[in-house]
Amino acid sequence: MSAPVVQIIETIGGGVASPKGFRAAGVSAGIKAKAGALDLALIVSDRPATAAAVFTTNLAQAAPVTVSKEHLARSGGMARAIVVNSGCANACTGEDGLRDARTMATGTAHLVGCPVDQVLVASTGVIGVALPMDKVEAGLPVAAEALGSGHGPLAAQAIMTTDPFPKEAASRIGINGRDITIGGMAKGSGMIEPMMATMLGFVTTDAGVPKSLLDRALREVVNETFNAITVDGDCSTNDCVMILANGASGVIVDESNYDAFADALRSVCLRLALGIVRGGEGATKLVTVNVIGAASAGDARQAAKAIANSLLVKTAIHGGDPNWGRLIAVAGRAGVAFELSRAQVLIGPIVLFKDGRPYDDAAPEAASYLKNTDVVVTVDLGSGSASSTVWTCDLSAEYVRINAEYRT
Amino acid sequence: MSAPVVQIIETIGGGVASPKGFRAAGVSAGIKAKAGALDLALIVSDRPATAAAVFTTNLAQAAPVTVSKEHLARSGGMARAIVVNSGCANACTGEDGLRDARTMATGTAHLVGCPVDQVLVASTGVIGVALPMDKVEAGLPVAAEALGSGHGPLAAQAIMTTDPFPKEAASRIGINGRDITIGGMAKGSGMIEPMMATMLGFVTTDAGVPKSLLDRALREVVNETFNAITVDGDCSTNDCVMILANGASGVIVDESNYDAFADALRSVCLRLALGIVRGGEGATKLVTVNVIGAASAGDARQAAKAIANSLLVKTAIHGGDPNWGRLIAVAGRAGVAFELSRAQVLIGPIVLFKDGRPYDDAAPEAASYLKNTDVVVTVDLGSGSASSTVWTCDLSAEYVRINAEYRT
Repeated sequence: MSAPVVQIIETIGGGVASPKGFRAAGVSAGIKAKAGALDLALIVSDRPATAAAVFTTNLAQAAPVTVSKEHLARSGGMARAIVVNSGCANACTGEDGLRDARTMATGTAHLVGCPVDQVLVASTGVIGVALPMDKVEAGLPVAAEALGSGHGPLAAQAIMTTDPFPKEAASRIGINGRDITIGGMAKGSGMIEPMMATMLGFVTTDAGVPKSLLDRALREVVNETFNAITVDGDCSTNDCVMILANGASGVIVDESNYDAFADALRSVCLRLALGIVRGGEGATKLVTVNVIGAASAGDARQAAKAIANSLLVKTAIHGGDPNWGRLIAVAGRAGVAFELSRAQVLIGPIVLFKDGRPYDDAAPEAASYLKNTDVVVTVDLGSGSASSTVWTCDLSAEYVRINAEYRT
Repeated sequence: MSAPVVQIIETIGGGVASPKGFRAAGVSAGIKAKAGALDLALIVSDRPATAAAVFTTNLAQAAPVTVSKEHLARSGGMARAIVVNSGCANACTGEDGLRDARTMATGTAHLVGCPVDQVLVASTGVIGVALPMDKVEAGLPVAAEALGSGHGPLAAQAIMTTDPFPKEAASRIGINGRDITIGGMAKGSGMIEPMMATMLGFVTTDAGVPKSLLDRALREVVNETFNAITVDGDCSTNDCVMILANGASGVIVDESNYDAFADALRSVCLRLALGIVRGGEGATKLVTVNVIGAASAGDARQAAKAIANSLLVKTAIHGGDPNWGRLIAVAGRAGVAFELSRAQVLIGPIVLFKDGRPYDDAAPEAASYLKNTDVVVTVDLGSGSASSTVWTCDLSAEYVRINAEYRT
């Protein structure tokens, strides 16, 4: 038996069009009010790819979510293309919205030359407004014409709403002596006409991945990346993460190399997810919330989410206030096992509460640490050995301004 | 059998010292940094009163919470006095904090002339800081000396932190041919040195109420009043609502007149609770969230709380934006039964979403309605006939400013 080979994940520039056999486009179809703004993205694989996706758990799911689920089921998890528009969420639009999402898929299928159920659809923007189908139908051929392996950055721009910057990530890893590439793009919160933040993520790979393994990898990785971030605790009607694996690298993923593939996928998804948090509405800091000493992984995640969503915690961090009392208080009301006498709070590496008593001498050092853009807070629940990490951003007055503005 | 007598609840001016046999005081003991600020309150009944209380469910409970629970258990639910300080929460202070809370009760018992376990204690202010016991012990005799039936307003001021105004309420109701009075005071969020908002409520009545009925009335009423409000979704380490019933009116509450008593208690607690919301940190509007058409009362409450705590909803209302999509989206992710095709959203009396489609023509009217200081939003989950009402405030940039300021 040979020694296990350590897999090196190489971080590379690029995005959804970086893996072999993928092209992308981002064009302006006039869906957004601003003239010339990119608002229609296309990702096409040159051969049928295994496809997997996770969707919003919101019961008010948008039309493109419904249609993409139908297509994945009918195609047996195969796809050639993903078409995405920004500027309109096509959510809460009833039967008309479903018809529009299907028309968007049909138009794309015609241009790509594939069955309609091999096209996945996503939308982001204002809820309750009909898609301007004349603009979408006129834009699709333009996007198809513009497809290219160098156009991942344009696609990443075309899915933005008021995201402050586009989010792309790519990784390369050697498997069975050959390289595979995984590329992705995502968008977060912040909209020209804010109705509801939508999180979209799209990942491509030239690895060949059987449907069952692709589903498993996506579920596992999303749980630790996209599902471990929070900007404002609200879950959109349109959220989705989709992955296409087209096998163009000649590498087939199986049980023997699954972990290497999943690790590389995690490295891409984590960078995209952290990009969403850094670009969260009004955000000035990326906050890593570690919960340790939990009775179970579920407890750890629940406490970490409660801390990450606490307005009092988020505003304290925004103000650079090492306010450990707020962290303890959230841990105590998070609905999980918690033992005050064994609990700890650390801001960065600095202990502020331990053994049931404050360490306030360390407060100035902690206040100084909180001037960093990337900060870590750690809460030990004193109740076991499980842990969880969640990422969030601070809460600023700018967040209120963005979200209180009337939509006109 | 005689016809049931309709009970008229009369809203009167006054607070905790309004019922017969109660006196109150609010003095400056120097616990708060600001010279002369009232920070020590005392409520004394001239005879032993039946006492009931509900406390924070936070597992990081503060020392005064622990001590008050002990005293209620030992005294068999009898109390003569409640002593409250602001400016220091005496939370996360370990064994020293428990000793200080007990000392505060002992000093009060000595002045009042009652067993120590007939004194209840509460504190609000910064977490993790020791009570300045020299100041508390010097302040207690001053407070005892100042006790008077006209001093309810001073007591209501002495429990404030950065509350923008004091909260008092009183009601009178005739029972068995005689009047009983119920008076109360409360404090909400907003602190000079914000570490964690603390909600405190204190209610007195000259009705004679057996312990079992007093417990039941307080639990039922708190569930529909203090537990139905939210400012920021965070639950403090020090929250409590206490009631003393001393029987000085000569009226005894029993099963036959319980409903009248509970209704009057509800009228007092609701006004106090709404005062807390109106005075919420940075609040500019009182928002009533009605959820109807729920599959169960639990579902209705859960959805109403989710809506009331959604940053996107609170900022939209702050900005006067009739953004019904955010209300639908929260209802959809609230973890309760929800049927999009039968759901409705109303802002004030104006329908904005119904039968699966938007009524956007009504948006300008709804935007105009949202200019009011008191607004109502209603979401029909389309899943049943249960309902719930929750009260919250909007989220302003001022909230962020208050909570982001460094504590020094």
